Amino acid sequence: MARVYNFSAGPAAMPVSVLQEAQREFLDYASSGMSVLEMSHRSAAYQEVIDAAENNLRSLVGIPDSYGVLFLQGGATLQFAAIPMNLMAAGRAGYIVSGHFAESAWLEAEKYGVAECLASSAETHFDRIPALGTIEAKSAGLDYTYICQNNTIFGTMYHELPRTGTTPLVADVSSCFLSLPLNCERYGLFYAGAQKNAGPAGVTVICVRRDLVEFGPVSPYCPTYLDFSKQLAKGSMLNTPNTFGIYLCSKVFEWVQAQGGLEAMGQYNQAKADTLYGALDDSDFYRGTAQRDSRSIANVCFRTPTPELDAAFCQEAAGQGLMGLKGHRLVGGIRASIYNAVTPEAVDALAGFMKSFELAHGSRSF
Amino acid sequence: MARVYNFSAGPAAMPVSVLQEAQREFLDYASSGMSVLEMSHRSAAYQEVIDAAENNLRSLVGIPDSYGVLFLQGGATLQFAAIPMNLMAAGRAGYIVSGHFAESAWLEAEKYGVAECLASSAETHFDRIPALGTIEAKSAGLDYTYICQNNTIFGTMYHELPRTGTTPLVADVSSCFLSLPLNCERYGLFYAGAQKNAGPAGVTVICVRRDLVEFGPVSPYCPTYLDFSKQLAKGSMLNTPNTFGIYLCSKVFEWVQAQGGLEAMGQYNQAKADTLYGALDDSDFYRGTAQRDSRSIANVCFRTPTPELDAAFCQEAAGQGLMGLKGHRLVGGIRASIYNAVTPEAVDALAGFMKSFELAHGSRSF
Repeated sequence: MARVYNFSAGPAAMPVSVLQEAQREFLDYASSGMSVLEMSHRSAAYQEVIDAAENNLRSLVGIPDSYGVLFLQGGATLQFAAIPMNLMAAGRAGYIVSGHFAESAWLEAEKYGVAECLASSAETHFDRIPALGTIEAKSAGLDYTYICQNNTIFGTMYHELPRTGTTPLVADVSSCFLSLPLNCERYGLFYAGAQKNAGPAGVTVICVRRDLVEFGPVSPYCPTYLDFSKQLAKGSMLNTPNTFGIYLCSKVFEWVQAQGGLEAMGQYNQAKADTLYGALDDSDFYRGTAQRDSRSIANVCFRTPTPELDAAFCQEAAGQGLMGLKGHRLVGGIRASIYNAVTPEAVDALAGFMKSFELAHGSRSF
Repeated sequence: MARVYNFSAGPAAMPVSVLQEAQREFLDYASSGMSVLEMSHRSAAYQEVIDAAENNLRSLVGIPDSYGVLFLQGGATLQFAAIPMNLMAAGRAGYIVSGHFAESAWLEAEKYGVAECLASSAETHFDRIPALGTIEAKSAGLDYTYICQNNTIFGTMYHELPRTGTTPLVADVSSCFLSLPLNCERYGLFYAGAQKNAGPAGVTVICVRRDLVEFGPVSPYCPTYLDFSKQLAKGSMLNTPNTFGIYLCSKVFEWVQAQGGLEAMGQYNQAKADTLYGALDDSDFYRGTAQRDSRSIANVCFRTPTPELDAAFCQEAAGQGLMGLKGHRLVGGIRASIYNAVTPEAVDALAGFMKSFELAHGSRSF
């Protein structure tokens, strides 16, 4: 079958050229006579793979030596615990609750110390990034202030980062990672599940200011696997990493660089987002669910007039090869995730389908 | 390049037919128009993949419904912490220390309660499984008794399981998993890093008696990701799992079944092991490092008369396409890992090389 247009929120579309390259060398990587899948992580050949992954990421994002890079497993959910166990030195951190995953991170942190909710948009059903005016004052004395920078489920994104004074900013950037430029030095730590924009599921990329973790975890209950200090000392290979996943991430980093890097990617993605948000704003039939000043560059969430039409929309779209448009089960509706590997052609096809679906169904009275 | 003979201890050789099948459908899985790598873990198509993986494993091993199966991330090292956090209800567990990984598990458990060393072969440099005569008495009243069933680094394996009375036996079976039959009901929990015999790195298979975890973790510090109860309720998808890794594991399970299942696999592997142990026993040049009654079916560890010759052996072997023979860095020497996907042809080639290397180097006086 021809490849479909994949708007899944993650795991998500990957660059076709990356997949083709991996397919070609699937049984014989770099004339080694074996698959990357079969290669000892302690071999010189694999050391080159993981070193290249780190170097490709460092040059793509602009990560200075004062930050360490890790490729771990367990997804964001495991980082919800790892972060307080490594960073909550004085036992007190602040969380800005802008959606489901920020809330989950906040609740998890309460296992390990005092986790304060500094701001929340729960009252407006997470349709926006909370107002940030008081964050700097509230951050004083905390071990870190935590944000989820792009809220995949609700389609919202920080358009400026909160000021936190000398308190390190910690960010889950999973669903906007590599979608647009990122200023590493604004963060104490940022991390991303790879399965949106950076590679396959099963790899979590963590970038942390070395001085924040040099003395090891602060919790005596921190699993050794999650000891950032030890993992940094071992180059993410305290034990066997997700070898194939890291190899694919490295290829994706190269691909993004070849597209022009993060500045170019940001323009490319903004143009795709503008197409869809424009279609929403031009219509009385569709309604975007995120407030305009909080709109995500990566996840465009909207609704038709009824849940039944939302379901019909997703079903008819799938019939035309537009896949993965169903909103998250917590909120329903429709969501188009337009990460780096989703082409303008796919977005145009979706915009065209939106028009034809509105023509077919929009004349009814609701 | 032609595919080499891969004796790596893990990640390790995978069945060629599994790799070829995965390669064929790498950009279009089951006419879905996308790669498994790109597929939402919440899609019906992926649910079928992970359900098949579990069902394939259950029928292959013979796992009854009273046991739950999980596919998690983080390797054995993360399980070293997860197991006490989930199972150490009374705060006291026993560990049999038969090698490096058993020792690491023991030390990690001490973070979460009292972890007693019930027996150890450290004094003889882990060249054997410790005597098990006193284990049943020592296990009384413990939350569990823990073993590492096959010691990859030292090439030793339990040929009978310790009796533990009513105390659940917990086993790291990573490097003998699917190498030979396994009687599920002898265990409270067993787990395996997939990267030896079950698939790629990045998947950990856990099989646990449901009644042991039904009330959730016993440690208040257990990361939600490692809550076996919650993960069982969510079918290993509390968050995004290693989707591609699980898909490959499922194919490996099918492949093992097609080879005749675990009984047949055990005979197949024993014949390969006999070839190599026979070559060691027939020689005054090579010396097997494991005591005979503790020899592993999966990892054959030996030495030549000198470390210099060990290094020359590995280097010359690599020149002939026999890869991954260097012993673990903790012990040196030579190690041939002969998991399911390593063919008798590969083992015969190694045995032949051993003879020619001895002929070339064995006449020197040491």
